[in-house]
Amino acid sequence: MRSRADCLALDAADPLAPLRDLFTLPKGVVYLDGNSLGALPKATPHRIAQVMHAEWGTDLIKSWNTAGWIDLPRRIGDKIARLIGAGAGEVMVADSTSVNLYKALSAAAAIARFDSPRRNVIVSERGNFPTDLYIADSVARANGLELTLVEPNEIAAHLDDRLAVLMLTHVDYRGGRIHPMAETTRAAHRAGALMLWDLAHSAGALPVELGGDGSPESAADFAVGCGYKYLNGGPGAPAFVWAHPRHTARMDAAGWRQPLSGWLGHAAPFEFSADYRPAAGIGRFGCGTPPILSLAALDCGLDVFGSAEALGGIAALRRKSIALTELFIEQVEAHCAGHDLQLVSPRDPQQRGSQVSFAHPNGGYAIVQALIARGVIGDFRAPDLLRFGFAPLYTRYVDVDDAVGALAAVLDSGEWREPRFHQRAAVT
Amino acid sequence: MRSRADCLALDAADPLAPLRDLFTLPKGVVYLDGNSLGALPKATPHRIAQVMHAEWGTDLIKSWNTAGWIDLPRRIGDKIARLIGAGAGEVMVADSTSVNLYKALSAAAAIARFDSPRRNVIVSERGNFPTDLYIADSVARANGLELTLVEPNEIAAHLDDRLAVLMLTHVDYRGGRIHPMAETTRAAHRAGALMLWDLAHSAGALPVELGGDGSPESAADFAVGCGYKYLNGGPGAPAFVWAHPRHTARMDAAGWRQPLSGWLGHAAPFEFSADYRPAAGIGRFGCGTPPILSLAALDCGLDVFGSAEALGGIAALRRKSIALTELFIEQVEAHCAGHDLQLVSPRDPQQRGSQVSFAHPNGGYAIVQALIARGVIGDFRAPDLLRFGFAPLYTRYVDVDDAVGALAAVLDSGEWREPRFHQRAAVT
Repeated sequence: MRSRADCLALDAADPLAPLRDLFTLPKGVVYLDGNSLGALPKATPHRIAQVMHAEWGTDLIKSWNTAGWIDLPRRIGDKIARLIGAGAGEVMVADSTSVNLYKALSAAAAIARFDSPRRNVIVSERGNFPTDLYIADSVARANGLELTLVEPNEIAAHLDDRLAVLMLTHVDYRGGRIHPMAETTRAAHRAGALMLWDLAHSAGALPVELGGDGSPESAADFAVGCGYKYLNGGPGAPAFVWAHPRHTARMDAAGWRQPLSGWLGHAAPFEFSADYRPAAGIGRFGCGTPPILSLAALDCGLDVFGSAEALGGIAALRRKSIALTELFIEQVEAHCAGHDLQLVSPRDPQQRGSQVSFAHPNGGYAIVQALIARGVIGDFRAPDLLRFGFAPLYTRYVDVDDAVGALAAVLDSGEWREPRFHQRAAVT
Repeated sequence: MRSRADCLALDAADPLAPLRDLFTLPKGVVYLDGNSLGALPKATPHRIAQVMHAEWGTDLIKSWNTAGWIDLPRRIGDKIARLIGAGAGEVMVADSTSVNLYKALSAAAAIARFDSPRRNVIVSERGNFPTDLYIADSVARANGLELTLVEPNEIAAHLDDRLAVLMLTHVDYRGGRIHPMAETTRAAHRAGALMLWDLAHSAGALPVELGGDGSPESAADFAVGCGYKYLNGGPGAPAFVWAHPRHTARMDAAGWRQPLSGWLGHAAPFEFSADYRPAAGIGRFGCGTPPILSLAALDCGLDVFGSAEALGGIAALRRKSIALTELFIEQVEAHCAGHDLQLVSPRDPQQRGSQVSFAHPNGGYAIVQALIARGVIGDFRAPDLLRFGFAPLYTRYVDVDDAVGALAAVLDSGEWREPRFHQRAAVT
């Protein structure tokens, strides 16, 4: 068990501590939901004001060229590429994670079947984030494929000659369990299938190596991810999509056409040609005109990682993230024993993302609400999870101490049983 | 021919003149490209700053409930509904126009074929905006349909028993020609087909009556539209989608499933159910998490129409728009005669949207560039069009006079022949 003084000492010795100053965080609040909506970088409001006044308001339509709006999806993509083990020019920012998944999974399935026509199954995890499953179901229906949902321990048994694409979320949104990326990708490839990763809960929080661990067969095929969680791009920030260059180079040969064939995925949109001719590389994953204000905010979120680079970058962030989650588990188990909380996240930090979830048999929602009333913001995930995210860019060790103190108080007092904490909000 | 004094007098007498004060417009610029990117409403920067500081920065994740982010796509949709002859609750803001077209056209085709299985043709106009044609081609491929592109005068001949959906853009993006909405919809319906409208160049600029002219068969079926043109939602603002309630009520019965079945089109996204269950009504057209900063900016753009309501609303805006385009044509033909400019837009104002295009045999691009150098911003549309938009919310009669003066000067001086005006930018 650590004391508050221990936590303060950890913060004082934390080489990443200065990064918190790059964010605006409300006073009196312990924010442990950066895995759902990242905090506001201090630079963002100024940049957005500039986009509004100087670019939109003053230069108006000219800003597509003069302010480089037209290149923003690729320039921001390059910043994301550095966080996920992808190369420059390989990542495109566009649309939402759901829409990007529709494109990427459709491409993966088409290429897998082009290589092996009898492969007609997409496998994913039953507990994957629902939108991924809904979209996978749509892609499967649209392409005459079968979607098979399995438990994590059943994946290996489904790596067979019917498998077209294995589609997994790298870090589970509920418990935070990590799928080992290179190892899983290699297994899918050895089965002759393609590997698609959703990086919603990993990009910006832990090292992601889409390029693999050195062996070519460990390099993934497709990925999508979210801009508004650990990348701090703001509510509903645009998402990103990646495809390995070996695939973008042969999509035409494989007869795959981007279903969402909007003009900004065209090789020359301003020729206004009646015929669709896809842009080279990842460019064809563009579709409609992107929301520039939200893109610019995402750009600011990524600039924070530029500042983190000098302090050790993603590797250092991961070390701190593990230290934070280890501390949280240790403190909860020490201070909240006997209150029916059960650790759902992996106890081994190497298998755990930047979040910790505990199950509570009947109080999950209400305990989270009672914590929020005390200024500690985590979230509830059905049916019974209290989920706490530890964004290493701005979370302090003392925040962990405060959060556990509040959780113990909520449980010890029984205040979470008050009816007001059981009223459901639209968004939980 | 009108004098500058005449134009100043028209502005002085213009009941809509105060609306210009609701916008920030750069000094020394005549902006005739609001049909491509609408101007910045003065209220927008303050609202966006508030969203960033108070909602995102301070209330963080709670703002999905407390600031009503979760309802924003529907609340803004209701403001758009009032401009396009749709009912409350029938319009959803989401994604881009291209993505919304993919959803809406897919729904229209499915319902048309559910009613008449042999109908397997989508008809559109060869000169439709390219992204519409690219997306229609994708929808046709995905659903085993045929896409037939015709000239406007050939549409009637294609209203036959193979037609599933007639998909047209209400106001042509190049010449600004209006398709008569109720009449065209009625003709499509009499042929047994469904009617889908793209309102990119009409919503906010002229009266749109999706609900028809009183007869039930003149009520359209589906529509999509753009937030960043006449609605002044900012660069890349989210788009909107509408479906007649008679269709949203029977989509399940018709076996149509939204292909982009993301979680925010789910009936209860925060149940995190593994099964997709579409939201009621237009709600199922949601997909991923929407970009809140860009949504809030669109909301501000629409609030301007609330202010316009007291001054006569869309009907008054249309009267002014016609007066502006009439004046522009008259002045160009008076001051720029003998310079090979040819009016491409309909001469009859009832058939013309809020824009005027002239063709020039070889100088289209360069003349537009030379005009921009003189502070008059229109745009070029391949292959040979000079296009000028007259957003009636903020364009003055004296702007028309200034623009024609600059155009005459560019042509009389021959300065557009200078090489610098021929260098192509990425975005034209």
